[in-house]
Amino acid sequence: MATDNQVPGSVGTSASLSLRLGQTIFSSASLLFMSLGVEFYSYTSFCYLVTIMGLVIPWSFTMAIVDGYSVLVKCPIRQPGVLLIIVVGDWVLSILTLAAACSTASVVDLLLRAENPYCPPKFCSRYQISAAMAFLTWFLSMASSLFNLWLLPSL
Amino acid sequence: MATDNQVPGSVGTSASLSLRLGQTIFSSASLLFMSLGVEFYSYTSFCYLVTIMGLVIPWSFTMAIVDGYSVLVKCPIRQPGVLLIIVVGDWVLSILTLAAACSTASVVDLLLRAENPYCPPKFCSRYQISAAMAFLTWFLSMASSLFNLWLLPSL
Repeated sequence: MATDNQVPGSVGTSASLSLRLGQTIFSSASLLFMSLGVEFYSYTSFCYLVTIMGLVIPWSFTMAIVDGYSVLVKCPIRQPGVLLIIVVGDWVLSILTLAAACSTASVVDLLLRAENPYCPPKFCSRYQISAAMAFLTWFLSMASSLFNLWLLPSL
Repeated sequence: MATDNQVPGSVGTSASLSLRLGQTIFSSASLLFMSLGVEFYSYTSFCYLVTIMGLVIPWSFTMAIVDGYSVLVKCPIRQPGVLLIIVVGDWVLSILTLAAACSTASVVDLLLRAENPYCPPKFCSRYQISAAMAFLTWFLSMASSLFNLWLLPSL
């Protein structure tokens, strides 16, 4: 059991805490950059991104608090049931985040290529940054899910 | 080992063979519906979908042949190394397929909502069917990956 605790990135380690903090920061940045442009209601993909980020932010924040508490009291969560919920939650959210990021990126690409000036340059760069932040969120969320999945069979 | 062989959907079972055949059929249909419309070169997302489907079709077809052979000779693959390659390959391809499907779906949605008639109705419905087929391919590919991943720790 002592070696299991050393899996870096699994729940209750400081690596996991930094992954969760990264997810929270990137998803909040993605939401902010998208919401600062007022025109996002016009596009389905942008509304979808905002919705998903509204799910990811509380999840990542809660997990960051759990990790921080586990690091402080040095008592990581090792119940298979709880770990399974965390793995499945991370996995579903990372798939949804990937879908939102791809949709946003492809719509921004289309808007930039259109002949008519569909989006002012100021808004378009914001949308691009938002999509990039969503991709980073997906990457960190997938990493969290994989690290915890790696731990699961050993319990 | 006899019970491991009973995991439905893992490599070398008839369930896996039907999953692979489904992937081949749906990805080919997605490619055909997209390629029949001649205008797909104009959009990055559509070119990306065609590229990814060009990767998924040979992979699924090869795996279908491997499964068919395993079912016939009743000797499924159980080397952990080979199984790991199959799981990782399925996983990467399913992520790429999901990204392509989301991009295509969001671009089609945007084209349909544009004021200018960007795409004739005939082409747009083809693009929609292509995106739906790509989503089905993603679902089956993810199922294959999960079934094989389930088998992996028991080897």
